[in-house]
This record gives sequence, structure tokens and C-alpha cells, in this order.
Amino acid sequence: MRLLFIGDVVGDRGVHMIETYLPQLKRDYKPQATIVNGENSTPVGRGISQAIYKTLLASGADVVTMGNHTWDNKEIFEFIDGTTKLVRPANYPGKDVPGRGWTQLKVNQATLAVINLQGRVFLPPLDDPFTAADALVTEIRKTTPIIFLDFHAEATSEKRAMATYLQGKVSAVVGTHTHVQTTDGQILPGGTAFMTDAGMTGPDNGILGMQSEGVISRFLTQRPTRYVVDEDEKSILSGCVIDINDQNGQATKIKPILISDAHPYFN
Amino acid sequence: MRLLFIGDVVGDRGVHMIETYLPQLKRDYKPQATIVNGENSTPVGRGISQAIYKTLLASGADVVTMGNHTWDNKEIFEFIDGTTKLVRPANYPGKDVPGRGWTQLKVNQATLAVINLQGRVFLPPLDDPFTAADALVTEIRKTTPIIFLDFHAEATSEKRAMATYLQGKVSAVVGTHTHVQTTDGQILPGGTAFMTDAGMTGPDNGILGMQSEGVISRFLTQRPTRYVVDEDEKSILSGCVIDINDQNGQATKIKPILISDAHPYFN
Amino acid sequence: MRLLFIGDVVGDRGVHMIETYLPQLKRDYKPQATIVNGENSTPVGRGISQAIYKTLLASGADVVTMGNHTWDNKEIFEFIDGTTKLVRPANYPGKDVPGRGWTQLKVNQATLAVINLQGRVFLPPLDDPFTAADALVTEIRKTTPIIFLDFHAEATSEKRAMATYLQGKVSAVVGTHTHVQTTDGQILPGGTAFMTDAGMTGPDNGILGMQSEGVISRFLTQRPTRYVVDEDEKSILSGCVIDINDQNGQATKIKPILISDAHPYFN
Amino acid sequence: MRLLFIGDVVGDRGVHMIETYLPQLKRDYKPQATIVNGENSTPVGRGISQAIYKTLLASGADVVTMGNHTWDNKEIFEFIDGTTKLVRPANYPGKDVPGRGWTQLKVNQATLAVINLQGRVFLPPLDDPFTAADALVTEIRKTTPIIFLDFHAEATSEKRAMATYLQGKVSAVVGTHTHVQTTDGQILPGGTAFMTDAGMTGPDNGILGMQSEGVISRFLTQRPTRYVVDEDEKSILSGCVIDINDQNGQATKIKPILISDAHPYFN
Ligand SMILES: [Fe+2]
Ligand SMILES: [Fe+2]
Ligand SMILES: [Fe+2]
Ligand SMILES: [Fe+2]
Ligand SMILES: [Fe+2]
Ligand SMILES: [Fe+2]
Ligand SMILES: [Fe+2]
Ligand SMILES: [Fe+2]
Repeated sequence: MRLLFIGDVVGDRGVHMIETYLPQLKRDYKPQATIVNGENSTPVGRGISQAIYKTLLASGADVVTMGNHTWDNKEIFEFIDGTTKLVRPANYPGKDVPGRGWTQLKVNQATLAVINLQGRVFLPPLDDPFTAADALVTEIRKTTPIIFLDFHAEATSEKRAMATYLQGKVSAVVGTHTHVQTTDGQILPGGTAFMTDAGMTGPDNGILGMQSEGVISRFLTQRPTRYVVDEDEKSILSGCVIDINDQNGQATKIKPILISDAHPYFN
Repeated sequence: MRLLFIGDVVGDRGVHMIETYLPQLKRDYKPQATIVNGENSTPVGRGISQAIYKTLLASGADVVTMGNHTWDNKEIFEFIDGTTKLVRPANYPGKDVPGRGWTQLKVNQATLAVINLQGRVFLPPLDDPFTAADALVTEIRKTTPIIFLDFHAEATSEKRAMATYLQGKVSAVVGTHTHVQTTDGQILPGGTAFMTDAGMTGPDNGILGMQSEGVISRFLTQRPTRYVVDEDEKSILSGCVIDINDQNGQATKIKPILISDAHPYFN
Repeated sequence: MRLLFIGDVVGDRGVHMIETYLPQLKRDYKPQATIVNGENSTPVGRGISQAIYKTLLASGADVVTMGNHTWDNKEIFEFIDGTTKLVRPANYPGKDVPGRGWTQLKVNQATLAVINLQGRVFLPPLDDPFTAADALVTEIRKTTPIIFLDFHAEATSEKRAMATYLQGKVSAVVGTHTHVQTTDGQILPGGTAFMTDAGMTGPDNGILGMQSEGVISRFLTQRPTRYVVDEDEKSILSGCVIDINDQNGQATKIKPILISDAHPYFN
Repeated sequence: MRLLFIGDVVGDRGVHMIETYLPQLKRDYKPQATIVNGENSTPVGRGISQAIYKTLLASGADVVTMGNHTWDNKEIFEFIDGTTKLVRPANYPGKDVPGRGWTQLKVNQATLAVINLQGRVFLPPLDDPFTAADALVTEIRKTTPIIFLDFHAEATSEKRAMATYLQGKVSAVVGTHTHVQTTDGQILPGGTAFMTDAGMTGPDNGILGMQSEGVISRFLTQRPTRYVVDEDEKSILSGCVIDINDQNGQATKIKPILISDAHPYFN
């Protein structure tokens, strides 16, 4: 099967890019499943709302993944338990974490499992994502070898380590969180597609989607400043397309997707 | 003028990649100046030695930049003050820091200045790199508008913020330290070339150049493990080529360079 | 002269402890100057308001110092520039930081200078507090040798290092921020009084003044929880009394102050 | 029963303080069990050796606890599995961690359990110490209600949170790691003795036991400096004595112990 993955959707402009390009991308690439990271999809760039979750699904997403901003919009506590296709990091500690850390969906005759995990380097001490990955993958592989992991993490070392740790056991490890796409998309031994970061989707002129003024001022003054989603019209959409052998779950190809003024969309 | 920049050279294999490909790259791209980040160029991947510094120059580097590993090989304290083309982060605090934070060289009729700065997000609290950049750039622009900054930093936000902060004032801000090249090479308003990270040069199979076993074991056990440079034969060279207008110092083009088994070299 | 210093005042209960005990302490110990750290004095435990600043002065404080929570209550931006006895960390970067980093007051025939600095270990990268201390102390000693430093920092090592760095140059280095008083009050060589942390003033039953439930829940779940000032009636007041030779600025004695249910107040 | 606990023993001078004062303290206070934190007991102040472990036991320690420096002296991997009274943090991840995270000993007719846990705030992401404590305490209370926890952690908030979390379930939570004793020794509801930090044992003039020069130089330069154990003759011994009801495991009293030039020893 073919998967389409879209990295961190930021603010209204990010949602708008999904509405605009996801139908086109699906028509042109014909993925059988589409996964979108929505941890920054509210207008303020933090968390998600039920309305936006539904918009992302209506625009063509089959699964929405999250990250360290999962709980930033408090509305999530009201609707996450009623969802089946919203996946937050599986390694939040405790037995009663709202929502789910992975989901699965039927794609033709096959089953695709989608996991979300969060790294710990320069991030809060959730449960060990490596041990969590091990347990989840062992369990899921009883049902299906087709496993996609959105590993939401800061450090390149932790992301590559996770991919190497899981190589041959999952179909793909794609990183999110740094909001900048990397050039290292590759198939690791054993058929695991890997890319350190898929990049972001939303305003292209600011700093990771935020207006430059506030971010630079924070660096200069170390005093609180307003972080707001950038309003310039330039936008970007980032992600990747991954081809997977349905029989053994091995990825055969990973292709970056990048749409922006500098990279206009032609398939 | 045209600049060639090569990202973090890791271990013997990294130095070997420089010896092998730098002459070819120079022949094909004809850069007038070549800058190489050498902070990981010793066999253990930490710091630099005088012999390796000379090897990098002999292979075609005009300037060698550093980063957070500058002082890891103690030998540097013996030779750095005798060098003119070895540049460590300019924002180490104090008045008596060994070595220099920037250098300049004549290129045809023009003068190229090369600055090295280190970020502070998830890194030690050196002096503020933004304020340091401001002061250096103001001073250097009295002599030349052609300024290249190797900004050695972890966070994508800090790197993009630095580039935006300096846009129109320097020719290029290229990030290093994460060892993974990003796809966002671009010319910012005012003619400042920018790329979040140039990527690394050295072993391509490990984790940022290190053997996977030790790194993964550290993540799993949180106990000390041996970090050694990876010995697999697969190698990578990462960097970029930047074209600059000698008259006004504005960059007109930035092109990524990536040589690996997956990206064999043809110009 | 004799100084009285009171550590981080937390919430309404902290302000109430000041109103209740400061007059008594002043009557019994007869300090010529009183300094109170007010960085947590709003009802929510973050920042200060103009009304509370005035209440602290009215209760007997001569100078109010701050810390990493200085800017948390936005009201401060409206009134800090009109104050002369509100001192925020002197090492916030930039030339236009609102407010002042030190102040001085006439005490009998002598002049007392009060400095506030913030540490950087496990805290944001302000300007280097050691270098800032050096510059300030050199300048202030032209006028007076009687210098009190509230060093607001997390790490015991950074606090002791600052005190050792300044020993013989200032009258006292007293730490704040950890909210727990230490037993190491002592006179360092050269007559510098030192205590790693003065402790806090406010609710005594919670966790650093906050209700236990929210704090423990945060540790267990790593998800956002409500941090509210503890409402139990038990309260604590922490600080120290320091005797200084007006002629040479050397401290001769430091005595801890601790008032709580377990340490009822008798002079 | 009565317990004597001694905080982080640093270097030769720390071991010497144990040899000198532990016999006296045991004669005067008559504790039935003595616990010593030995994580800094090698001459360089990092880790422990078999010889020093035996010296601590020979001087009167019944159990030796550790902390974040557990693995710094590689020799520990050779002897820790042969020990029964050396306890390292129980929350190191994985199933095959060398050594043990808790031990127990017969004291008269009763059984004392000693646990070591490490915090995660400003420290590496071991397994959650709260969850680990919960599991261990539940298990151990099947055998005995007399439980002592050395919680090796940086943040005062995490230490107080742990004590509150366990109050009524363990006899004592005593913090270590910051090397400075706090004044908050108290009996929490349910009979849990608590002290944020017991303080250190060793050189009293340096910075947490280390020579000031190297530590201050590191803060000033942010470049590597030599950290060596301080050699001045002034020494300190820090700890506490805790009385526990053998029937229900509830602590009835906690008394700080502090021996230094400023606090000469008289019982
Ligand atoms: Fe994001
Ligand atoms: Fe994120
Ligand atoms: Fe590097
Ligand atoms: Fe680096
Ligand atoms: Fe505070
Ligand atoms: Fe604070
Ligand atoms: Fe220690
Ligand atoms: Fe420690």
C-alpha cells in the first residue's frame, strides 16, 4: 500500500493548506491511507479542536497524530475519548491517559497500524519511548506487519536511534516536531522507511510557523513575548509518501513531499 | 563569489570523505572559498587536532569552523592561538578565550568574513549569540558585506530566528550540529542564504556518525556506554554551495550538496 | 548595621505572614534595613502587583527583590519603572530592561546597596551573573562597601560559587528560589555572609507553597494540571538576620529566621 | 528503632569523616541501623570502589546508598552484584540493571527496608520514581512497614512531592544530591519523616566538596576545567537521626546531624 504522511499542521493556514492540497495529492499519488500530524492545528498553533479534527478527516486524513502539544487546547479532554482516529503519544504515563496511543485501519485486504510516540531528549520525561515501542510493536505484529510510527522528538540522535532500534520490525519511522524537513529519507535494512523530520505545514515565512518578531524578541530579552501564528501569505506543506509491501510490511520507497512558493506543486 | 561549505566532519571517515571529494567538488563547482566544520574530526569524533586541521586545509579548506566540541581534544589549547583559519564560536565568554571567533580572507578583489557562533537552546549558556552577531556584523560590515555565519545550534527555531535577525546584513547563515541536512535552503529577503542544517560528513550508517549499539544502549539503560565512531564503510558528505554578489554581499543562490550511497556524486 | 532578609513570599498567605510577623521581627531584632523577596507574592504565586508591592513596603520592607517570576504578572510593566525599591535580576539582557537591577538606601550614615541576580543553571540563559556581579560590585564599591546580593538560583553549586567568587567584596550573598531554607548560614573569608537558600514565606503544607494534588499529579501524568497556592492554614516565614560592620562592609554574623508551627516565634 | 543517615560522602576527606565520627555518633545516639550515601566516595568524588564500600561498612554503615554518580567508577560493575548492602537507584530502566534498588536487614525483631530512588527533574529520564516507589512500597509493606527512602534528586519540589506522595506509607523520605542540608526536617501526617536534603560529608570549604577554582572557572568560561575534590582541611559531616515505631513503622522524630568547624560535635 501507499501512505501519505503530512507533518505538523500549524494554525489556520496549515489547515487551509490541507484543504487545498490534500485532495490534489491524493488524486495524484493515490495513497490508500493518509496520516496528518495535527498537534499545532488550532488558530494559536497549540493543540487541536474537535472541529479541526473533523476538518482534517473531511479533507482526506484517515488518522491524525499528535505530540507534545496534545493537551494544550483543553477542549481535547472532552472529545478525545470519543475518537478512533486521533492518536496521541502512546508513552504518556499512567493507565488512564485520555485517548489512544495507536490505532489501526483496514486498507484493502490489509491492516495498517499507526503509532504515535514522543521523545524525551529536551522534552518531558514520559515513559521510555523505546521500551514502549518494543511492547507495542510486538503486540501489533501479531495482527499486522504494516506499522507506521510518527516519532515526535527534538533530537536527531533519538529519532535515528528509534529507527535503527525498530528497523526490520516496522514499515516506517517518520519524525516530527522540529518543523523542518530533512533530506535523509531512506529505507533502512529490513525495509523500514525513515526520515528524521517530515517538516511542517502552514506559514512559511515565520519561525516554525510563528511570527518572527515575538520569537526573536524572546531570544533577545528572555522576557515573555507573544507567540502568534504568522500571518504572511506564504505557506508550506511538508510530508512524505511511503510505499509498503502489504505481504511483509517492508517499505520499498520513501519520497519527500514539499509544496511552497519555492517548490510549487506539480506531480 | 561562490562558497562551498561542508558540515560537521566526523572521525577518520569524515576526513577521508574530505580528502576524496573536496578536490572533485572544487574542480566541478569552482568555489572561490571553502569552509569546513571540523568540530568532530578526531578519530573519536570529538574536537580537532593540529594534524587534522592541516589535513583539512591541505585538502582544500580555506577556513575550518567548530562548535560545542571545540575544546574536547585538549591538544587544541596548544595550537589554536597559532592558527589564522581555525574559527571557534565567537560567543564563548570572557576576554581571553583561546583562538578567534571569526576570520577573513581575500577572495579575488573581495574580502570574505567567516563567523562561527553557538546557540544556547539545549546547549550551555555562552554569551547571547544574537547580540554577539549584531556586534560582529556591524564591525565587519565596515570592511566587507560578504559575511558567512556557521551557526552551530540544536533548535530549528533558534537557527531560523538567527537567520531572520540577520537577513539583509549577512550573505549566509548556515546551521550545523544536528548532523542531518534540511531541505529548507533558501534566499531570505535582503539576500541572506539560509539552511537550517548543512548535515554531516562521515559514517552514514550509525547515529550521527556514532555506532548505533552504544547510542541505543544509552537510551535504553541510561547508564554510561561507549560512544565510538561508526566503522561501517558507508559514508556521507553534506554541505552547500552559495553564490554571492561581491558588490553588495547578497546571496543569489544556495544549492545543497549531498554525497552518499543513496546520492552518488555526479555534478 | 543589621539587615533582615525574608525569602520568597508566596500568595496571600505569604503576604499575611509579612503583615503579621514583620513588625514583630523588626521590634525584636531592630534591623536598620529590611529586604523581602516578592517574586511569588500575587494570589496565584507568580509575580507581584503594585498593591502588593505597596503592602510589603507598608509592612516594613525597605527593598523588594524578585527572580525568574518577575514578569509573570503583566501589571509589573505598568508600574516597575516608577518604583525605586523594587529590584529585579540585574542580568536580564539588553539595554532597555524595565526596572532596575539594584538600588541603594541611606541607613544612618551609611549606604546599603541591594542587588538581585538570577542564576543560569536549570534556568533561562540570562547574561552571565558572575560577570554582571563583577561589574556591579566594582561600580558600587566606589560608593559603599555594604552590598547585599539576593542570588535567585536553582543549583546549590552556582550559589556557593557566586558567594566564593564575591567573598571579601560584598557583605552578603543569600540565595533564593528553591523555597527551602538551608543550614549552611556562615561568614566566608573576607566577611561575606552566605546562605544557600533563605527559604520561603507562605503556605507550609503544600509543595513550595503550591497545593500538593496538582504538583503530584503533574509528576505522575506529565500532563498539564492546575497549580494553585495551597490553602491550608499552616504557614511559614523564612529568612535571616545579618550584622554588618558599617566601616568596612564586612558581615560579622548571619542568623537564620524560621517561623512555623514547628518553629513558633519567640525571640 | 533509631536510624542514622549520613548524606553524600565526598572523596577521601568524606571517608575520613565517616571513620572519625561514625563510631562516636553510634556510641552517642545508639542507632540500630546506619545508612550512608556513598555516590561520591572515591578520591575523585565520583562513584564508589569495593575498598571504600568495605571501609564504609567497617566504619559502621549497614547500608550504602547511591545516586546519579553510581556508575562513574567503572569498578562498580565488577563487584556490585556480589553485594547485599549496596543500593543504587531502583528506577534505572530495564530488567538487567546491575545491583539492587533496595535491601532489607533485621534490626532486633523488626525488618528495615532501605530504598534508593533518583529524581528526574534536571536529571536523566530514568523510570518514573513515583510509580517505582508505589510498586516497591506496596511490595515491601507485605513484609514490613519500616521503610527508609533515600531520594536522590535535584529539585526541592520533586523531593517534597515524593514525601507527600508516600506519607503514611513509609517511615522516612530523606533527600540527597544537592549536598547542602535543609532546615525542614519534619514528621509529615501518617508518620513519615522528611528532610529535603541531608547535606554532604567531606570538604567544607569548596563548592559541594570540589575545589572552588575549577568550578568558578567553568561558570566564567563555559570551557572544560578540572573538577577536583577540595584539599583544604575543613570538613563537614551531615545527616539525620530518625526514630521509628517498630510496630507501625511511623517515624516519631527526625533530628538533623551537622558536624563542622562551625558546628563542633558535642552530643
Ligand atoms: Fe509541532
Ligand atoms: Fe511538537
Ligand atoms: Fe557536530
Ligand atoms: Fe555540535
Ligand atoms: Fe520563588
Ligand atoms: Fe524563583
Ligand atoms: Fe552527591
Ligand atoms: Fe548526586
